[in-house]
Amino acid sequence: MNIPADVAARFIEGTLVAAIAQDPKDGRVLMMAWMNQEALEKTLESGHVTYWSRSRNQLWTKGESSGHTQKLISVSYDCDGDALLLQVEQAGAACHTGERSCFFRGIDFQQGDQ
Amino acid sequence: MNIPADVAARFIEGTLVAAIAQDPKDGRVLMMAWMNQEALEKTLESGHVTYWSRSRNQLWTKGESSGHTQKLISVSYDCDGDALLLQVEQAGAACHTGERSCFFRGIDFQQGDQ
Repeated sequence: MNIPADVAARFIEGTLVAAIAQDPKDGRVLMMAWMNQEALEKTLESGHVTYWSRSRNQLWTKGESSGHTQKLISVSYDCDGDALLLQVEQAGAACHTGERSCFFRGIDFQQGDQ
Repeated sequence: MNIPADVAARFIEGTLVAAIAQDPKDGRVLMMAWMNQEALEKTLESGHVTYWSRSRNQLWTKGESSGHTQKLISVSYDCDGDALLLQVEQAGAACHTGERSCFFRGIDFQQGDQ
């Protein structure tokens, strides 16, 4: 497989990498989940996104039960190899709540002038 | 502070939350780093993004040495409270390499028809 050395090093040290899914049509960030080496390999081989579920401790192919699959369009990795950015074609809602994006709630703060 | 209960629960259990910085002007995802409660509080209070550095084990106000600050425009949190999405006004490059985004390298894969 084509896993870059920087990312492979994370898997060797036993770290999961964060995987951010974005819709390239409008740039909306849909969700963030985790991948181990097997999840990334399966994603690259199949062209459909598979994550690693930390709560269920198993591979989790997005949409396998809901039908809300993510077809992989492109994937990039960050400078220290611990995060992936996936451009995906999302079927239906990305969030299990039915919202398009998991990031559907804001946090209030005082906007400063700094 | 305005930290939502779902996110506060992560801090109580000792988990860092992932913080994704995005430029709302064109939707470019700039970087992903980590926040503890203190980092998020400082970010919300100051209106400038502060992360928690896992390697240096200390607060890290983005741009404090490089000048490449991130002014907070808005912040949302995900359905399970372990990730934040920050809309930021980025001064200069987000990546320490000088690239605009830390996600500047792609991973090749065979695009399927599935």
